[in-house]
Amino acid sequence: MVLKSIPIIRNPHWILLNRNCLNLNKRYLASDAKSKSNDQTNISVDVSQKQKIYITDPISPGSIFFLPNGTKVFNKLVQFIKLQTTQLFGFKEVITPLIYKKSLWETSGHWQNYQDDMFQVAVNDESKEIYGLKPMNCPGHCVIYKRFDRSYNELPLRFADFSPLHRNEASGALSGLTRLRKFHQDDGHIFCTPEQVYQEIQNCLKLIDLCYTKIFKFTNTDESTTEPYFLKLSTRPEDHYIGDIKVWDHAETILKNVLEESGKNWELNPGDGAFYGPKIDIMVNDHNNKSHQVATIQLDFQLPERFDLKFKDKDNYYKRPIMIHRAAFGSVERFMSILLDSNNGNWPFWLNPKQVIILPINTKKEDHVNESFKLKNFLSNNNQTTDNDIQPIPLNSFHFEAHVDDRSEPLGYRIKDAILNKYSYLIIIGDEEVKTNKYSIRTYNDRNIEHLTSAEIFDKFKTLEENYK
Amino acid sequence: MVLKSIPIIRNPHWILLNRNCLNLNKRYLASDAKSKSNDQTNISVDVSQKQKIYITDPISPGSIFFLPNGTKVFNKLVQFIKLQTTQLFGFKEVITPLIYKKSLWETSGHWQNYQDDMFQVAVNDESKEIYGLKPMNCPGHCVIYKRFDRSYNELPLRFADFSPLHRNEASGALSGLTRLRKFHQDDGHIFCTPEQVYQEIQNCLKLIDLCYTKIFKFTNTDESTTEPYFLKLSTRPEDHYIGDIKVWDHAETILKNVLEESGKNWELNPGDGAFYGPKIDIMVNDHNNKSHQVATIQLDFQLPERFDLKFKDKDNYYKRPIMIHRAAFGSVERFMSILLDSNNGNWPFWLNPKQVIILPINTKKEDHVNESFKLKNFLSNNNQTTDNDIQPIPLNSFHFEAHVDDRSEPLGYRIKDAILNKYSYLIIIGDEEVKTNKYSIRTYNDRNIEHLTSAEIFDKFKTLEENYK
Repeated sequence: MVLKSIPIIRNPHWILLNRNCLNLNKRYLASDAKSKSNDQTNISVDVSQKQKIYITDPISPGSIFFLPNGTKVFNKLVQFIKLQTTQLFGFKEVITPLIYKKSLWETSGHWQNYQDDMFQVAVNDESKEIYGLKPMNCPGHCVIYKRFDRSYNELPLRFADFSPLHRNEASGALSGLTRLRKFHQDDGHIFCTPEQVYQEIQNCLKLIDLCYTKIFKFTNTDESTTEPYFLKLSTRPEDHYIGDIKVWDHAETILKNVLEESGKNWELNPGDGAFYGPKIDIMVNDHNNKSHQVATIQLDFQLPERFDLKFKDKDNYYKRPIMIHRAAFGSVERFMSILLDSNNGNWPFWLNPKQVIILPINTKKEDHVNESFKLKNFLSNNNQTTDNDIQPIPLNSFHFEAHVDDRSEPLGYRIKDAILNKYSYLIIIGDEEVKTNKYSIRTYNDRNIEHLTSAEIFDKFKTLEENYK
Repeated sequence: MVLKSIPIIRNPHWILLNRNCLNLNKRYLASDAKSKSNDQTNISVDVSQKQKIYITDPISPGSIFFLPNGTKVFNKLVQFIKLQTTQLFGFKEVITPLIYKKSLWETSGHWQNYQDDMFQVAVNDESKEIYGLKPMNCPGHCVIYKRFDRSYNELPLRFADFSPLHRNEASGALSGLTRLRKFHQDDGHIFCTPEQVYQEIQNCLKLIDLCYTKIFKFTNTDESTTEPYFLKLSTRPEDHYIGDIKVWDHAETILKNVLEESGKNWELNPGDGAFYGPKIDIMVNDHNNKSHQVATIQLDFQLPERFDLKFKDKDNYYKRPIMIHRAAFGSVERFMSILLDSNNGNWPFWLNPKQVIILPINTKKEDHVNESFKLKNFLSNNNQTTDNDIQPIPLNSFHFEAHVDDRSEPLGYRIKDAILNKYSYLIIIGDEEVKTNKYSIRTYNDRNIEHLTSAEIFDKFKTLEENYK
């Protein structure tokens, strides 16, 4: 950034010290100790094994090997949240480095405070500087922000990032998908003016409401409320805080007002804020009604200071932007673990790596089997492999996970097996289906049968996926 | 993997030694020294700056910060190749760890041979073992392969992986997007039986042909050929090779036969194979007619040995699978650099971060401007942000990069600027357009104007994106 001779005006109301944003990220990732549920971990590990979602290996403790089924779920989740953040909420995705010289972490304050939580990387450089493997994306986003001379009309500037992050967790603390050394966040940082903070926090809550009301409705057996999620505002700790009380009060008032206006239930968690600033945590319940933190929204006045970030305001003065850290899933891996606990392996159709199974009634009848594979190819929408003149698969096309079970087992046995394997849909193909080209389709948990053409089935599935059902 | 008491049969014809697969990956990544073109780097760096594709920073030399525009191109490329590899060619995507204990790299042979090229990571473990930041995905895929008792009917098993990879390049060697410390491959490993090798290599060539004939047609000013790409078969070096000559001959025969049958031009590059095995390299030309290696296909008999990989064959004996490493882009970053050189910033519509600009004729007329933003929202397909009841953006929906230039500059100036900025399409909106809701649309390089409704424009753009035009 080229420094201009125009003076920088710092609005003292907006200078709230926080040490750095790693604390926030710890919150994103770590299981809430108070609500840690071994059941939850057990269910998710159990289902994961049955469904071949992921494996771990002592060759890389705390790093997940997502198997093909788990990768499908992971990718769909990221695809969903990416679409909402970029297309609905104006975030711009960036891809940033994973290793940075120590000096970056000194600027951000991590080196002084969190060195032990970071993996150090030895680089055979002229500089002989040590590198740190990033535990979070915010300093990288500050580097991008700072590179260009920023004007007020670029703000709010919102960066999204889905980089793998690493933290040096003790191997004894590692657990399933919830406590990892390598994980991904649906991470976002908003750089904005003081006047824009209110609206931005409001939009963060809208995204969160979209996620936890419309798409992911977690079990809630708590009869005192019908809310699918609840909000906590954590305010200034009584003793251990830094910064000016007026600034704290102002920031807390903003968050309170946004919460009030949202019309949602929220509770005050007085004194439970981080020592550097207030935050909103979003909690959901698992099947045992234990609460888990998923999303977080956090105001940050400190990193813009430390990185000396500026924007040129309408009045031609350079001013300090405010930074908001936020995530809707938090750690994608941990979110998957809560999902697994909640659905016990019964994935909604759009996320299910086993969407539909096709069962020829008589596996000895060639036409039953052929018709089954024909339908599988149609639903998979990729039946070109035998052609010599291959046409590319179009962008944004739908491809359903369709399998055929033509083992020479009785139909009843194969139906039972399909249900145990938690296929969303079962399609049965016999003489009638071969003749009419209308197929008998049912869900795994409902014996009602519909009779649909292949095109009707495809459209039905497409509508389900499009709407995240 | 549970070891069974059934003996392992190794087919001596199929035991060809290669040291490890890093050599291969070096080829994926590195600019071909013989054909290194500074022009190419210069053009791509120049366009990147103008179009804000990426930045680099001394805080992390050799790692790219992809800006929003570059991230869009990167993501589209990955989206394209992922769809083709998974839906057309049966690859299953996996997500694998980035750091592994030294012992993995000892098994794969990298620790002994390539320690200096790998970043070492210090982990505060009980094991006190050093970790390596991965320079390639193959050992991780071997870990997944080995975890399960594999049967012949699972083969060919094809893993795709888009992990970030790191290599300890000297800082002096770093260059633009072509020589990096952090990069991504469209990486794939096929585990198959000896009988399946031929078909698999053939399919690799089909994917490559799809890419370089149908989608990415690089400039070729070489008048002696009309082929958009050419193939090189590199065979056994005269002196420095390991393994049995019969095995080499057999492997080379397979590759030759596949090349012959492909009907494509190919040349023999005698003696230029790696010392551990023959390979097929795919080359394209830049605007100076200098050739660059993009894709590679490589037979590997060594890693399955080193990791003791097996499958249970029809005859109930455990046998050794063969591994094929292949990539169609190679390094995605380097591929982007060649694209940038080839198109000089004139991206095809589907990749263009600046797809369409809408120009109100008279920026003082409210209806011209309003109509422009209305059309922008329609083409962006995300015009819900003002609603209180937000609906999720559907999966696999299309969202075009539409911008409005309503600066109070003469129309001619703004048209010129749009062309300089390499927008694919320009839409002009004046009284007539406001009245009829038919918009005047032209490409940046053709003055012919079409008059289309917003729905017709959307469909036109959708067809372009779907077909990678």
